[in-house]
Amino acid sequence: MPANASATREYVQEHQQRFLEELKELLRIPSISTLPEHKADIARAAEYVAAQLRAVGLDHVEVIPTHGHPLVYGEWLRAAGKPTVLIYGHYDVQPVDPVELWESPPFEPTVRGDNLYCRGACDDKGQVFALIKALETLIRTGGGRLPVNVKVLIEGEEEAGGEAIERYVREHPDQLQADCALVADTGMVAPGIPCITYGLRGILYTEVEARGAAHDLHSGTYGGIAPNPLHALAIIIAGLKDAQGHITIPGFYDKVRLVSAAERDLWRRIPRDPQQLLHEMGIPEFFGEEEYSLLERMWTRPTLEVHGIAGGFTAEGAKTVIPAVAKAKISMRLVPDQEAAEIAQLFTERVQALCPKGTQVHVNIIHSGAWVLIPPDSPPIAAAAEALKEEFGRDPVFIREGGSVPVVALFGSELHLPTVMMGFGLPDDNLHAPNEKFYLPNFYSAVRCAAGFLQRLAG
Amino acid sequence: MPANASATREYVQEHQQRFLEELKELLRIPSISTLPEHKADIARAAEYVAAQLRAVGLDHVEVIPTHGHPLVYGEWLRAAGKPTVLIYGHYDVQPVDPVELWESPPFEPTVRGDNLYCRGACDDKGQVFALIKALETLIRTGGGRLPVNVKVLIEGEEEAGGEAIERYVREHPDQLQADCALVADTGMVAPGIPCITYGLRGILYTEVEARGAAHDLHSGTYGGIAPNPLHALAIIIAGLKDAQGHITIPGFYDKVRLVSAAERDLWRRIPRDPQQLLHEMGIPEFFGEEEYSLLERMWTRPTLEVHGIAGGFTAEGAKTVIPAVAKAKISMRLVPDQEAAEIAQLFTERVQALCPKGTQVHVNIIHSGAWVLIPPDSPPIAAAAEALKEEFGRDPVFIREGGSVPVVALFGSELHLPTVMMGFGLPDDNLHAPNEKFYLPNFYSAVRCAAGFLQRLAG
Repeated sequence: MPANASATREYVQEHQQRFLEELKELLRIPSISTLPEHKADIARAAEYVAAQLRAVGLDHVEVIPTHGHPLVYGEWLRAAGKPTVLIYGHYDVQPVDPVELWESPPFEPTVRGDNLYCRGACDDKGQVFALIKALETLIRTGGGRLPVNVKVLIEGEEEAGGEAIERYVREHPDQLQADCALVADTGMVAPGIPCITYGLRGILYTEVEARGAAHDLHSGTYGGIAPNPLHALAIIIAGLKDAQGHITIPGFYDKVRLVSAAERDLWRRIPRDPQQLLHEMGIPEFFGEEEYSLLERMWTRPTLEVHGIAGGFTAEGAKTVIPAVAKAKISMRLVPDQEAAEIAQLFTERVQALCPKGTQVHVNIIHSGAWVLIPPDSPPIAAAAEALKEEFGRDPVFIREGGSVPVVALFGSELHLPTVMMGFGLPDDNLHAPNEKFYLPNFYSAVRCAAGFLQRLAG
Repeated sequence: MPANASATREYVQEHQQRFLEELKELLRIPSISTLPEHKADIARAAEYVAAQLRAVGLDHVEVIPTHGHPLVYGEWLRAAGKPTVLIYGHYDVQPVDPVELWESPPFEPTVRGDNLYCRGACDDKGQVFALIKALETLIRTGGGRLPVNVKVLIEGEEEAGGEAIERYVREHPDQLQADCALVADTGMVAPGIPCITYGLRGILYTEVEARGAAHDLHSGTYGGIAPNPLHALAIIIAGLKDAQGHITIPGFYDKVRLVSAAERDLWRRIPRDPQQLLHEMGIPEFFGEEEYSLLERMWTRPTLEVHGIAGGFTAEGAKTVIPAVAKAKISMRLVPDQEAAEIAQLFTERVQALCPKGTQVHVNIIHSGAWVLIPPDSPPIAAAAEALKEEFGRDPVFIREGGSVPVVALFGSELHLPTVMMGFGLPDDNLHAPNEKFYLPNFYSAVRCAAGFLQRLAG
């Protein structure tokens, strides 16, 4: 145990109520990055995060304007001869619809039992705030100093494609150079079981636009001779993935890496209860490629999902319209060794090939992010494992996650950093859904674990 | 020519500006029957129509409350020994979205050139108003009397399934008994070419609801093991109609009647310009069953169209949600001798059979209406043909239409009436679409033709 682990515990204990209240202030700001009407909220959230970094004692704290939403940066580089850690998180959140399913208002932080309910409570405001509070704890209990050098970079577009941070990282590799990165934007497989995430799926998010006639047509008058872009989209979507969940784009699976025996061994330590997973999802049976295990389907197999189809009439009642235009949002989760650009090409070719006569279709790539695979035996991951073991009293399990953190891929490709993904979300935290929550004991564990990790990294 | 045809012409000429201003008053009321927020507008429109019937001099005018939107009724039964005509129309209109495509506000009647632009200008406020003005013209020029007996029944739910009038007709066959019905809710094939419509397609309008998980899921975390109801709907819709427009529901075409040689001969008199039709629709080529002629596909072949798909995320930006529920509005146009109840059964069975594992699907029948086929040589149709010939200087052509007027089927089955469908809409009137219009010369032609028809019917 590092010399000042008990000091960390005491400080967190003493300030836990204030930590919570300060987090609630951040959560109340509806910083939804995909909805233009929340642009001012995004700016407020960025300023609040910057103010927190200044209060902690970081140097050169600034809100950096971008073409999209601002980045927040701060650093403390006075630990001569010690490693440098790049700390990342995001202050933006997902939309809240369907809002009627929230038990408490989505932007009013509400404690029920041991949980804090709010959009962003876990993903990612709660987790990134724990990292900031870990820095505060170390500085306050360490005579105004940190055990290592840190650079903090927090973005406001993670849920909207993260274009600004991608550009910034590409343009500022020297400013951001470090020995490793620390990201708290992942989860644990179950309460009390610490996890280190060593793999993430990538993503390719598209919008497919189908156009038929020049204007909407009456299905009575023109039905039988008119192209229907909604029907064309249905044919296209049905031609991309079959009823058993197999993606039917030629070449799509060509570069998908098989899972090694060693990796399967690593997974045996993961406690899994399929019944609990079914309950959590609210389904009687799993969907998808039955020839693969559940973990393979969630972590190592690519996906293709349609998220919404616009066009025509969907309100109450009946309208007999054949729409002129219809659009589908379709994303793919990518896995080693798929490349987003190549998949985008295969996807576009397949969509064009499936499009019925009379409809013109166009594929718009909204954003993409590469998959990530970090060797579980690298030194920073070992330091994280020790910190987690001290907090939770057991060795962490090593997992992959099915979601995407494109910035982690970017840190690898642009900055050549291994990233430690030490996350504290739980499977029932309702990320991206109504009633998102954060298990409060995990919030404080996250503060202590991040502090312990930085202390161990100092050697 | 009936003795008072010139009196009709003079009266219409003298009062044409007032007719137009009174029609505009009706058009300004946004009586959209499918949107609950317009309930008060529906009531205002009904009262306005009733006030018009009273002003004309009809007896027993009343606004009849129903479970849905009110009916308007009035009668004049003092022509002893003369035939009785049931006059029908509807005062409700379609929704106006996408509202941004209207060149003038959808409920501000605007004359540009010879056209009156407004939602409902043609379908059906303009046309039913012409029938009312024909009654006014006959009474004012006929010494306070009509040449025949009339019963006027005007509904407010034609665009929303027409349940109220269906129930009313079934429950009041004695009150509504007549010798024929007159409906002006159809169109002409081209300007200057009068038409009598002797056939209509029926309709079966459904909503297909698909349910997967109990709540929305994150596609990163659960993609690969979660059912996606939107994808299920795409598979179902693609399995209902192929890329060439053939409906692939087993048994769907079994009762479809072939077109006779005599009917094809009748159609040879119809002037058609496929290039003009393509231009009107704004497409480079026709879609659909290439083995049938355009008229067959529009009039005598059944259709299946998807009108909208709800569920998930369709706003600007990106959201990686797998929705718990998705719904598709799907309608079929029916032709002789298909029966709506039987087709509903075949459709439901096919939808259930196509639904992928993991998704539950339910078919909700929103409304239906039977097809209509009236013998073109019946006496009331002959009277209408003479009135049209006098107005337009040429014999009318006999056509079918692809749309549905369920009430005409109801008049046949419940009241045993042949219905004269004498309509004045033009192919470019943008029914059910932005910038709906009525060609004003046709408005006045409709007044004169309806008057002439009733005079001829008196013998």
